Amino acid sequence: MSNANRQFLLAARPQGMVKPTDFEYRESPVPELGPDQVLIKTNYISLDPSMRGQMENRADYVAPLEIGDVMRAGSVGTIERSNNPAYPVGTLVGGSFGMQDYAISDGKSLPFRTFPDGTDPQAALGVLGGTGMTAYFGLLRLGEPKPGDMVVISGAAGATGSVAGQIAKLKGCTVVGLAGSDDKCQWLTGTLGFDAAINYKTQNVGTELDRLCPDGINIYFDNVGGEILDLALERIANNARVVICGGISRYNATGPIPGPVNYFNLVFRRARMEGFIVLDYASEFGAAAQEMQGWIDAGQLQQSATVIEGFTELPNALVQLFEGVNTGKLMVRTS
Amino acid sequence: MSNANRQFLLAARPQGMVKPTDFEYRESPVPELGPDQVLIKTNYISLDPSMRGQMENRADYVAPLEIGDVMRAGSVGTIERSNNPAYPVGTLVGGSFGMQDYAISDGKSLPFRTFPDGTDPQAALGVLGGTGMTAYFGLLRLGEPKPGDMVVISGAAGATGSVAGQIAKLKGCTVVGLAGSDDKCQWLTGTLGFDAAINYKTQNVGTELDRLCPDGINIYFDNVGGEILDLALERIANNARVVICGGISRYNATGPIPGPVNYFNLVFRRARMEGFIVLDYASEFGAAAQEMQGWIDAGQLQQSATVIEGFTELPNALVQLFEGVNTGKLMVRTS
Repeated sequence: MSNANRQFLLAARPQGMVKPTDFEYRESPVPELGPDQVLIKTNYISLDPSMRGQMENRADYVAPLEIGDVMRAGSVGTIERSNNPAYPVGTLVGGSFGMQDYAISDGKSLPFRTFPDGTDPQAALGVLGGTGMTAYFGLLRLGEPKPGDMVVISGAAGATGSVAGQIAKLKGCTVVGLAGSDDKCQWLTGTLGFDAAINYKTQNVGTELDRLCPDGINIYFDNVGGEILDLALERIANNARVVICGGISRYNATGPIPGPVNYFNLVFRRARMEGFIVLDYASEFGAAAQEMQGWIDAGQLQQSATVIEGFTELPNALVQLFEGVNTGKLMVRTS
Repeated sequence: MSNANRQFLLAARPQGMVKPTDFEYRESPVPELGPDQVLIKTNYISLDPSMRGQMENRADYVAPLEIGDVMRAGSVGTIERSNNPAYPVGTLVGGSFGMQDYAISDGKSLPFRTFPDGTDPQAALGVLGGTGMTAYFGLLRLGEPKPGDMVVISGAAGATGSVAGQIAKLKGCTVVGLAGSDDKCQWLTGTLGFDAAINYKTQNVGTELDRLCPDGINIYFDNVGGEILDLALERIANNARVVICGGISRYNATGPIPGPVNYFNLVFRRARMEGFIVLDYASEFGAAAQEMQGWIDAGQLQQSATVIEGFTELPNALVQLFEGVNTGKLMVRTS
């Protein structure tokens, strides 16, 4: 095994829901190290909604992904060999290492972040990783939470939503989460400290939002798009901030997807709707991770992951992501 | 005539396109003055797209308008009698005096703005009035124009769009206007100094935007909504500001109105879409009008109005507004 680099390649542009057959398994030799390079052995590989758009090259803020390329994915790993004194063997690193066991980097051509000794690798991929950073910068920079704000989060039991909600609580907001099962709702309120949760599959979201947010929504942090975005827009308060973080209801859609009918309420409510790409904040990831590690150490921020065992489960795991199996960060343990 | 106060009342909530029969003509006695009050004789009454929403009470940021109420409208007028030494006879004032010849105010219960002696009353209603203020605060505060920005304005030949475009030019931007006739387009480029104009009725808006804005749109100032908003969202540049000022394509619609399908490009382009209510800036209107009068005096900002003669034309004039007859501010001269 240690002589082979297991990989999943993009085999087909997905049509509708992503399928395991959109990927092709291959074993390649473990790459040789050049000057200044390090060999990273991945430990955990992340499954993220944004991977769907990359499979179609819809996400034009990253380099194109071609058929036959190693599927792009975020990972954490350990430096197993090093020709670079700045990055000693054993260092925990995170980056876009792809669906493979081994990646080569000099730290520049394939940028990565290093984590301090003792960092939980699951936290490095989750709350301190890409989705945690997404929650941190999306909520704090675009959402601008103030004490007493009413914050509503869709996809709240997912990797990003669950962190965004906890940060909003830390900032003194009242937080309502939307999720797709009673178990997830129970987890949000019972474990993470959300003030309320709505099961969007069994409850009337509009009625529940009316009941829980009688003075309207100050921050709506959206991971899903679609009908729920419209229900939220209908209920925003004056000067609300609608943070468009994701739109998972859109990613596997075929055919045209309706836009938010209630966008014009942005005028009546003098509100804004804003999108962002977390990579734009990369230079601040270190400082953010340090602050979040402090919250973790103080017991104010919880990391939660759904971990699937085994490299070969990666394609199935991505399908399961869109089926909503996970609570918190969904990842595959590969070694 | 001077003994009667001609009025148009709201007679019916409009269904679809507003109709003259949605109003009822009445003559009332000229109101008597109480302590501290002034009698305002209207000279010009403004026709604005936002009146459509008020007729249906869709605009919940203002007091409800009931059947039988004097139709709300912006006006400029002259103080004809005064029991208030702060407001002498002859002062030019602007405010929401309604579709009537006479209004009573003490300056508080029905707030109004005063204009310096010598102010052109058409400018007081237009470029220095509500639509001018809308252009000023919408473009400068939400749009945040920077030199070199590519600014696209829909409804550019209207009262607000024509002013917003001129202010953008003053700020060093490149400005493309969309309008509904070749004459309007010619006016935008030939008279107002827009860099380019697109006739959305005869040209392919997407193709023209691609040609004129090869690096994308930095500010889209939207007065129309609908398909053109979507075409603009598709072409926004990174960090673009989409200013939702109006949505005239929506106002007379019956049935559900589709939302902007391309809203998710706000994410890829890390952009924001924001609405506003100009009344929120009322405390700054005086300073803004002073700055704009300076631009007028320097020949950098032009006022243009389409003036319809005669009080009884008011209902027809509102219909004509939605038919797009006007270049610049549409108003009725009532006395």
